[in-house]
Amino acid sequence: MEAFNIQSTADNDFRAQVLDKIDNLTKPKGSLGRLESLAAQVCMIQHTLSPELKNPCNILFAGDHGILAQGVSVSPKEVTWQQSYHFLEGGAGISFLCRQHGFRLMVVDAGIDHDMDYSSGIIDMKVRKGTRDFSVEAAMTPQELDLCIERGARCVDQAFADGCNVISFGEMGCGNTSASSVWMHLLAGIPLAQCIGAGAGLDGKGVSHKLEVLAGAVRKFKDGNLSCSVRDILCYFGGLEMAMAVGAMLRAAELRMVILVDGFIMSACMLAASRLCPEVLDYAIFGHQGDESGHKLLLESMNARPLLHLDLRLGEGSGAVCAYPIVQSAVRMINEMDSFRKASVTKYF
Amino acid sequence: MEAFNIQSTADNDFRAQVLDKIDNLTKPKGSLGRLESLAAQVCMIQHTLSPELKNPCNILFAGDHGILAQGVSVSPKEVTWQQSYHFLEGGAGISFLCRQHGFRLMVVDAGIDHDMDYSSGIIDMKVRKGTRDFSVEAAMTPQELDLCIERGARCVDQAFADGCNVISFGEMGCGNTSASSVWMHLLAGIPLAQCIGAGAGLDGKGVSHKLEVLAGAVRKFKDGNLSCSVRDILCYFGGLEMAMAVGAMLRAAELRMVILVDGFIMSACMLAASRLCPEVLDYAIFGHQGDESGHKLLLESMNARPLLHLDLRLGEGSGAVCAYPIVQSAVRMINEMDSFRKASVTKYF
Repeated sequence: MEAFNIQSTADNDFRAQVLDKIDNLTKPKGSLGRLESLAAQVCMIQHTLSPELKNPCNILFAGDHGILAQGVSVSPKEVTWQQSYHFLEGGAGISFLCRQHGFRLMVVDAGIDHDMDYSSGIIDMKVRKGTRDFSVEAAMTPQELDLCIERGARCVDQAFADGCNVISFGEMGCGNTSASSVWMHLLAGIPLAQCIGAGAGLDGKGVSHKLEVLAGAVRKFKDGNLSCSVRDILCYFGGLEMAMAVGAMLRAAELRMVILVDGFIMSACMLAASRLCPEVLDYAIFGHQGDESGHKLLLESMNARPLLHLDLRLGEGSGAVCAYPIVQSAVRMINEMDSFRKASVTKYF
Repeated sequence: MEAFNIQSTADNDFRAQVLDKIDNLTKPKGSLGRLESLAAQVCMIQHTLSPELKNPCNILFAGDHGILAQGVSVSPKEVTWQQSYHFLEGGAGISFLCRQHGFRLMVVDAGIDHDMDYSSGIIDMKVRKGTRDFSVEAAMTPQELDLCIERGARCVDQAFADGCNVISFGEMGCGNTSASSVWMHLLAGIPLAQCIGAGAGLDGKGVSHKLEVLAGAVRKFKDGNLSCSVRDILCYFGGLEMAMAVGAMLRAAELRMVILVDGFIMSACMLAASRLCPEVLDYAIFGHQGDESGHKLLLESMNARPLLHLDLRLGEGSGAVCAYPIVQSAVRMINEMDSFRKASVTKYF
């Protein structure tokens, strides 16, 4: 696998300068709460007291999942390719959010099980047509995993070359909450039952069935894999779009970009990325905590405090893009607010 | 007092049409969470399936509080007039937020205890130079209260005449968490100790002293006021900027405007407004739950679920304006997303 060289943003001397600037803005100390900690994080990422957010981009990775054959999702598989076209046509959830906040939307075919028309604007990074069914066999080969990581990184290189320094990732892949739940279970050591939710709309019986299928697959995996490394887990359970997001996150951190993390599935990808390179978390801003069961626990396993709680469960990057104006507010705060000295206001704390 | 004629937005037939439109957008049913309920609320307020948000405005009412003489706040009184100028100069917290989200910022002198220069752009609605000290006597006369309500309404009329249909309110007034805590205690029946917090930065000893002063004033008020009506409470405890915000909220609802509610103090004003005209709550979107102790209880007393939890405690309207892009997202959702039929995507729920 490609090696990523991610630097920690920690720097105590510089951090003191950042906090001093924030504490001298015309407001009671700490009274802008999360905006203050966000501003500090962005300053540390960019190593400047005057950060800038440029050319935001949402990369949406799409792929299919062999496990869908086991009835773990309400969504029929054709929704993956149908929606992938739809994103770029402008009428999907992520479409209006990207328009609203000035995000470029890149839709990437990581592994859609359909012959796609790339003249639509969808970017061809297809590694294979959907993963294998992990209740039967490994979802991907190690070579396929490496290709995903490498191609995810390449997508970020393209955005970076176009001047982007703040990036979010989204996904489309019917069945991908199943793979995410297993990643979370195996990487964070949280009981599988607490990692499973309704996905796009399973009922109680559907959730029980999903648990049974996933538990069986995990048993089979553990029997055949003595090491259970991060790579083993990603190969065995997929998906292609998720592994590509992991590669993308690692490259984005290597390039010192601000990474906006979306909901349950992208949080699972960030967890995997952080198990490969812990420093990636320095670059991560968690946009949203959804109501997919287990997302709260998943975020806690990374000490992450998401910005929004809006009960979203759409994916596509929607929770990350929706949170972007708050990050912009933080950056405006540190760049545009006056200090007490400049404003001739009595400092009152 | 001026009578307000506020209509409830309830209309079951129309509501069914709104929900039908939302449920047929290309997403799993309910998967845009709070954006869906917000969109429905704005549709009901404007009675249309294609709502629009126009010329947003933040009206910031400023006034001083006689109770400051009792040492209930860390902020010296001159901060009220200093910051009032500063808001319009562009370097304050609310200034960058208004710029970011395209809000007009109106700064209103409701009762600043200082001779203001209105050529600065500050709007002269001064009722008196600060309230009286409510630990000694009533903060305002009934005539002064009526003037506040009327002038608050007049400010909204001005914004409305300029094409505004979405409005937030903010405040500047050293000592106004004291009045807000007492309003909350007396209007919602919540024990006074649970209504009191640190304001702009009191320590534990300061908070104890504040509780003692306020408890004494409440005893004195109850001894002298048999009815304890909403009007009695507002007169006795003030403040001028808060009573003006109550009048403004009532007029905004009468004009069927979307009202964005800021933090602790504006939530107390919305509580008072709702005790005068319960229908005002149909128009209220609560922007932010701050960390001022008791704000959570105050919101619960109105069954309010705020959009953001960012630990802000600045006032000025900052929490309301910061939440605005989420309301814009909700409106874009219902106007810009395709239906399943239009998009040729399989409906999968």
